[in-house]
Amino acid sequence: MTRTAAALVIGNELLTGKIQEANVAFLAKELFALGISLRRVVMCSDEADVIAEDLNLLRARHDLVFTSGGVGPTHDDLTIPAIAQAFCRPLVRDPVLERMIREHFGARTTDGHLRMAELPEGAELVANDRITWPVLRVDNVFVMPGVPEIFRLKFELVRDRLGRDVPFVSRAIYTRCDEGEIAALLERVERAFPGVAIGSYPRIGDPEYTVKLTFDGRDDALVKQALEACLSELPTEKIVRADR
Amino acid sequence: MTRTAAALVIGNELLTGKIQEANVAFLAKELFALGISLRRVVMCSDEADVIAEDLNLLRARHDLVFTSGGVGPTHDDLTIPAIAQAFCRPLVRDPVLERMIREHFGARTTDGHLRMAELPEGAELVANDRITWPVLRVDNVFVMPGVPEIFRLKFELVRDRLGRDVPFVSRAIYTRCDEGEIAALLERVERAFPGVAIGSYPRIGDPEYTVKLTFDGRDDALVKQALEACLSELPTEKIVRADR
Repeated sequence: MTRTAAALVIGNELLTGKIQEANVAFLAKELFALGISLRRVVMCSDEADVIAEDLNLLRARHDLVFTSGGVGPTHDDLTIPAIAQAFCRPLVRDPVLERMIREHFGARTTDGHLRMAELPEGAELVANDRITWPVLRVDNVFVMPGVPEIFRLKFELVRDRLGRDVPFVSRAIYTRCDEGEIAALLERVERAFPGVAIGSYPRIGDPEYTVKLTFDGRDDALVKQALEACLSELPTEKIVRADR
Repeated sequence: MTRTAAALVIGNELLTGKIQEANVAFLAKELFALGISLRRVVMCSDEADVIAEDLNLLRARHDLVFTSGGVGPTHDDLTIPAIAQAFCRPLVRDPVLERMIREHFGARTTDGHLRMAELPEGAELVANDRITWPVLRVDNVFVMPGVPEIFRLKFELVRDRLGRDVPFVSRAIYTRCDEGEIAALLERVERAFPGVAIGSYPRIGDPEYTVKLTFDGRDDALVKQALEACLSELPTEKIVRADR
């Protein structure tokens, strides 16, 4: 069975174009390598009701949900209260987090900082020996920070916790074809190899290739066979290279 | 009245981490400048049923919807059939597009190419004098390509068609504050200036600043007042600069 995942990316800064979203591609790649299928990403605004509603839809339909953003100490950080709302749980101050915050900020600790110690009741703090600042988990929801550097760092904790299914593999052919001329071939090969998903991606302005073909699946032997089947029918002079 | 918008970004290549999504930030910025509020982005897989369901949810709740991706000639390009499905309309071959495709590809024209001339009945082709390859519009849905260079080019057509509301403006203060120490101030100022949204964004590893504060709204005078109100209460030594 393939485990499914969704991501809920939270932040007005993304919806107003101030910032280029930078966690989804990383998360997608990591989950792919773990054999977990990322099915959907939703990007929403900093509004508790909106976040809670989206979260409830996503967590009902997917095995795992990752939120990104909205976990700091300021008024626009509403992810944690929204998660509590979604799960109908009260926010309670966690003594472990409170102590970590007070130790870190010392006399400069503010109510804002301490807001970060308020967690939905029953939440788990995931940490390990190397990364002491924990990731919050509530049932099947992992709560990740929006700042890309910290997202990446904390994903280590999540990776340990998730375990690994049979990983997906991806192989590729780079061609100088036009998509229209290979459409029928690709459709035929995909039908002949159930379990292999073929993608076709045109590229503009690249001196090397015009279309990249990808072959994704769990069974690497089958993925290779599908790739070879395509390769054998492509016009030789239009094949640039293949990641066999 | 603020017009609302949503984006539906389609493509397995994004959900498997092969490609960094690159159209949403551009679209978000453009809509912000046009005074249109982008409320939600959904990223989904190349499956017609999924695309159609998502599209119907988004178009019912937003004034405008932009799709990105899935409009080429290959088997994984399912956006147009999915839109037809969502609107319960048949696909019909458009004679204008068919002629353009045949002129462009000449004797090399394939059935794959001609699939790109199949449109949901009643769709409009938006073009102008400079950009002859049109953008498809079906009611409140604009159908954009996934390739970033073409997305940007074609957005010109969309911009002309959308018209312009009172634009949003955004101003910023760059600080060396810690978020916790200014949380109470930001909350107070946002309450005092309804119509101004304040954002607080920590930055890791930047030698210049640690937190960027943004002030967004339609009334620039009010936005400036909110910014000045914040500025007057921030510790002077921690203010790096302000875009007043």
